[in-house]
Amino acid sequence: MSATIRPLRRADRDAWARLWTGYLDFYETSLPQDVYEATFSRLIDPDMADMHGLIAEQAGRPTGLVHYLYHRHCWRVEDVCYLQDLFVDPEVRGSGLGRALIEAVYKAADDHGTPSVYWMTQEFNYRGRILYDQVATRTPFIKYQR
Amino acid sequence: MSATIRPLRRADRDAWARLWTGYLDFYETSLPQDVYEATFSRLIDPDMADMHGLIAEQAGRPTGLVHYLYHRHCWRVEDVCYLQDLFVDPEVRGSGLGRALIEAVYKAADDHGTPSVYWMTQEFNYRGRILYDQVATRTPFIKYQR
Amino acid sequence: MSATIRPLRRADRDAWARLWTGYLDFYETSLPQDVYEATFSRLIDPDMADMHGLIAEQAGRPTGLVHYLYHRHCWRVEDVCYLQDLFVDPEVRGSGLGRALIEAVYKAADDHGTPSVYWMTQEFNYRGRILYDQVATRTPFIKYQR
Amino acid sequence: MSATIRPLRRADRDAWARLWTGYLDFYETSLPQDVYEATFSRLIDPDMADMHGLIAEQAGRPTGLVHYLYHRHCWRVEDVCYLQDLFVDPEVRGSGLGRALIEAVYKAADDHGTPSVYWMTQEFNYRGRILYDQVATRTPFIKYQR
Repeated sequence: MSATIRPLRRADRDAWARLWTGYLDFYETSLPQDVYEATFSRLIDPDMADMHGLIAEQAGRPTGLVHYLYHRHCWRVEDVCYLQDLFVDPEVRGSGLGRALIEAVYKAADDHGTPSVYWMTQEFNYRGRILYDQVATRTPFIKYQR
Repeated sequence: MSATIRPLRRADRDAWARLWTGYLDFYETSLPQDVYEATFSRLIDPDMADMHGLIAEQAGRPTGLVHYLYHRHCWRVEDVCYLQDLFVDPEVRGSGLGRALIEAVYKAADDHGTPSVYWMTQEFNYRGRILYDQVATRTPFIKYQR
Repeated sequence: MSATIRPLRRADRDAWARLWTGYLDFYETSLPQDVYEATFSRLIDPDMADMHGLIAEQAGRPTGLVHYLYHRHCWRVEDVCYLQDLFVDPEVRGSGLGRALIEAVYKAADDHGTPSVYWMTQEFNYRGRILYDQVATRTPFIKYQR
Repeated sequence: MSATIRPLRRADRDAWARLWTGYLDFYETSLPQDVYEATFSRLIDPDMADMHGLIAEQAGRPTGLVHYLYHRHCWRVEDVCYLQDLFVDPEVRGSGLGRALIEAVYKAADDHGTPSVYWMTQEFNYRGRILYDQVATRTPFIKYQR
């Protein structure tokens, strides 16, 4: 089923919240309402250059989302693109939507002049990694956190 | 030997370049001159809120550096702090300077109201990880890159 | 579809070779004929206490195999059981046969008085690990080889 | 300081127990007396073909040990050699003794006609892995255990 992938807009608020909650559930996380408010406002703010969201629709139904942001990098003059959140409605898994969302971020990053795109995933996110191995390179970098 | 850790300033240019080159050598990387220029300018620019550098001196000699930057995070209202580059002159390894540099970033992040600090390291950076395991938590996150 | 899991016997030679070749293909490996001969002889030899094979049949068709062996362990008086090779015909994947084969080895090891069963798998064997996480514990041990 | 590495013998019983306890302490493990008895008897038994131990002496003092065993392998006609336990007295670390013990096992395995030697180590055994990366290859295999 073909998907339309486009930037988030204000009218997506409820669909976006539903999809993002699905994503956060995967990480066994819940976030307070003020984070939903701040993040959604930033994602749709045309004046906010560094944080963006795309939503996918299939047959008029919202079925996936991706959030990405730009930040500086000491090793480069231009910014890098951090693909932070990626979610596909379980009902449409296997349709290629995850790959399409990643590729939409690749295109946005190219258009922005910052083609270096990265993300992080849990080592045991097997289903995700089956896809990621096809569209990206696994690095030997692991994350430490205070 | 006690160390003074302070923000980078213009007069540190040569010492900074020497230390950073030592760091990049560790990653078997070399960077063009324009990256050195852009990064140093940003690190010392008081108007640039999102990118910072600290340098350590022991007995008047520059012996270590750390670069960190702030960026947005979809899961938080406030930014997070990404500790990107950390280097200690091999001659003073084992003196606790690496830990002191990380703790200086922790303090800066606290003062900035963004206490979430993270970094990435190669899985086989054994000497680094001996330290990191003492001051931070290893997460199960691994990095994928376009 | 219910499966019969039973010890290998001489008449299984051709079916076994076909299944094992499927397994070795997964590891992009091929083995010379003398290894097939030696291994099959050992697997069916009633006098060989330390090496065993089970084959699964579904609707009269061979659809899976598992090889396991016992060896000494310095930390235990009794032997341990090394589950070395596990294969399920791609056409019957998802039917629970992989789990049934592992559980058949667990039972054999219990009956043998050596309940410690282990195996090794490639970190990126995502489909296998989805199952293994359900029936066993991932350890922090990694394998080095001369 | 040069080391003598030789097979364990009955008179080594106390020194061996002390060294092995140091090794087991590293793994935060203690084992009952009957395991010490069974393992030592097997290690020194000339009729036991599959389990062996070497001890190192420096200046007449026992300073290290290694245990290895042979077991069958479905992918090979000949056995493989599993280097199970390796320990160097902390007081002589850095003297090259760990490497010498591994190389002594390599030689024994070669003489035995089973040159494939492997071992397992915890992913976070940084000090060990600094050595292992020099004398062996890290594989992508991880261990699962019932």
